[in-house]
Amino acid sequence: MGKSIFYHAGCPVCVSAEHDVLNLVKDVEVVNIGVNKARISEAEKAGVKSVPALLTPSGNVLHLNFGASIADVKG
Amino acid sequence: MGKSIFYHAGCPVCVSAEHDVLNLVKDVEVVNIGVNKARISEAEKAGVKSVPALLTPSGNVLHLNFGASIADVKG
Repeated sequence: MGKSIFYHAGCPVCVSAEHDVLNLVKDVEVVNIGVNKARISEAEKAGVKSVPALLTPSGNVLHLNFGASIADVKG
Repeated sequence: MGKSIFYHAGCPVCVSAEHDVLNLVKDVEVVNIGVNKARISEAEKAGVKSVPALLTPSGNVLHLNFGASIADVKG
């Protein structure tokens, strides 16, 4: 099983989801695209429409609840 | 770490999410509330607003993408 990537932007919904994801899923890279804006385009290419979102090893994106759209993160 | 419950209703979005969740998360009970309607009220009490959704051991609900609202499942 490969690595998952959890994209978030520091919002309250993101932080809450992050706790659950880190408890439940092994081998997760956490990326705050609110801070690390260089990785927004990578997230968009993967299909991330809003945060928090989990990109799974199979390449699917699971949007977990709704914190902010990518457009909001770009500001 | 306790058990998680994955609620779904057999919709295409649900099935896709189910594959990922079962690969990523250990100890998950899968409940199809489209078939097992007796468990809809339990899901609602836990905070499930739409399916697919994952109820975590800590009691949080992660709505994964959007397949159908609970109202749609009730039909």
